[in-house]
Amino acid sequence: MFRLAHVRGRAALLDDSHWFDLATLAGDESWSDPMVAIARHHDLHALSGALSSSLTPARPARPARPGGLIADETLGACVPRPQKVFAIGLNYRAHAEETNATLPPSPLTFTKFPSCLAGPDASIELSGESVDWEVELVVVIGTGGRHIGAADAWSHVAGLTLGQDISDRVVQRAGTPPQFSLGKSFDGYGPIGPAVVSVDAFADPDDIGLWCDVSGERMQTSRTSDLIFDVPTLVSYLSSICTLAPGDIIFTGTPSGVGMGRGRFLRPGDTIDSGAEVIGELHNRCVQPVTAG
Amino acid sequence: MFRLAHVRGRAALLDDSHWFDLATLAGDESWSDPMVAIARHHDLHALSGALSSSLTPARPARPARPGGLIADETLGACVPRPQKVFAIGLNYRAHAEETNATLPPSPLTFTKFPSCLAGPDASIELSGESVDWEVELVVVIGTGGRHIGAADAWSHVAGLTLGQDISDRVVQRAGTPPQFSLGKSFDGYGPIGPAVVSVDAFADPDDIGLWCDVSGERMQTSRTSDLIFDVPTLVSYLSSICTLAPGDIIFTGTPSGVGMGRGRFLRPGDTIDSGAEVIGELHNRCVQPVTAG
Repeated sequence: MFRLAHVRGRAALLDDSHWFDLATLAGDESWSDPMVAIARHHDLHALSGALSSSLTPARPARPARPGGLIADETLGACVPRPQKVFAIGLNYRAHAEETNATLPPSPLTFTKFPSCLAGPDASIELSGESVDWEVELVVVIGTGGRHIGAADAWSHVAGLTLGQDISDRVVQRAGTPPQFSLGKSFDGYGPIGPAVVSVDAFADPDDIGLWCDVSGERMQTSRTSDLIFDVPTLVSYLSSICTLAPGDIIFTGTPSGVGMGRGRFLRPGDTIDSGAEVIGELHNRCVQPVTAG
Repeated sequence: MFRLAHVRGRAALLDDSHWFDLATLAGDESWSDPMVAIARHHDLHALSGALSSSLTPARPARPARPGGLIADETLGACVPRPQKVFAIGLNYRAHAEETNATLPPSPLTFTKFPSCLAGPDASIELSGESVDWEVELVVVIGTGGRHIGAADAWSHVAGLTLGQDISDRVVQRAGTPPQFSLGKSFDGYGPIGPAVVSVDAFADPDDIGLWCDVSGERMQTSRTSDLIFDVPTLVSYLSSICTLAPGDIIFTGTPSGVGMGRGRFLRPGDTIDSGAEVIGELHNRCVQPVTAG
């Protein structure tokens, strides 16, 4: 079991209340890059196991927030430089219904361009007046491959994390047929974290509760057991087309309760508090853009 | 002026008939990565200038094909690991008409996931019976940034290359609304090359002729002066949403003449010969998939 985070630009392992610099723990500077650590995910279990022994923290301890989240704004995106970011649309039945969409015959796949990724406590500069929230489970590939069977898929997953697929609905819906990627890729529109949590930390990795509050109001709540295409199916399907690489990530889709279905969009000053069982929480505050272009 | 290629896994500069290992030329092994060379594009002009002096080739000379293309199957994708691959749909008026699409109000942007990129002579394993060709000018960002104005855009471009946006029309058109990215991202569906050619090599970088022959028949021929959204407009628009990074690439869209408009798709044994003025040529042969899944 491990929780891999990205603290002050370096890979770190978390226990319940502290974070530990991974390269210091391993005695090998090559572990300082979170992308390297993800590719070596099998070895992270043993390194993390040492945390529960008599080791003292290699860096100053920080008080934890509920769910093992470190109250530290220096947390970066736990997967900072994925080669590929897959994102799935309309993957919960209730969300497909609220957007009046027909159920997809295969996973509706777009991208969030990787420059949109941000840390779990990052501020979100709103691009307009139709920006929406979408809490999502995010899969982190640890072992790459092509033509991965669904039965073998979980063994290719380094761990799971939480993400917000922030979406500018005007940009997302422009054009014919509308291509979702760009409206979901403004800088900062992909906060993820707080950590990559290994699959063995979950009682059932196919049934994880997740939720999203906007300025204190519960907007989304669901369980990943309601996914139309579950994690093994997504890994298998995507790998039938693209060779997967360590560090590739999959935003698995959002449950019902987004603003588009409520006629309520994000405004400067709104807080977005997202959470998932075992994984932890994201806390993002909406602000006006600093640069107007 | 420079032509930057990727030969046997290393950055290389081309002159009319030879290629030169860039790290050997620079006396610095850090130049061996084409992505590093692209980020240092300003310095490539001087290094390339040395080629026209009395230097002997640092590696064995190879006979050139017409257009400066090296007949060498060890040529890799000249931009092997871009952080972002933007691809633009329906960006020539005549192509938008042949697909019965309305003209887009802003650039219709999807991705080709970077694992699809391949060298200029790579074989293409067909994913089905509705696979199509799309010759395209490809922009290579050299200097990153956000909110780049159109007037300043060309100064952010390291150079131009040629690409094929190979497309499985069934996968591309699946779902509602169809998301183009995955059907255009099968392994090998993005041959690019033969080299990144610096902007100063073109008499007018906004007016480049390009063409595509399939098994000897001319299918596409146009000029980039017919683009709906030209290169400066694309760079400016994309950078208004995403921070651009050195090595990001933009497939700028394809002119009319694709198979979808002709009822003719690619079959095993077909050859795709693509070309662009100044840049050179791609030569790709279609084969049946080796792995069936």
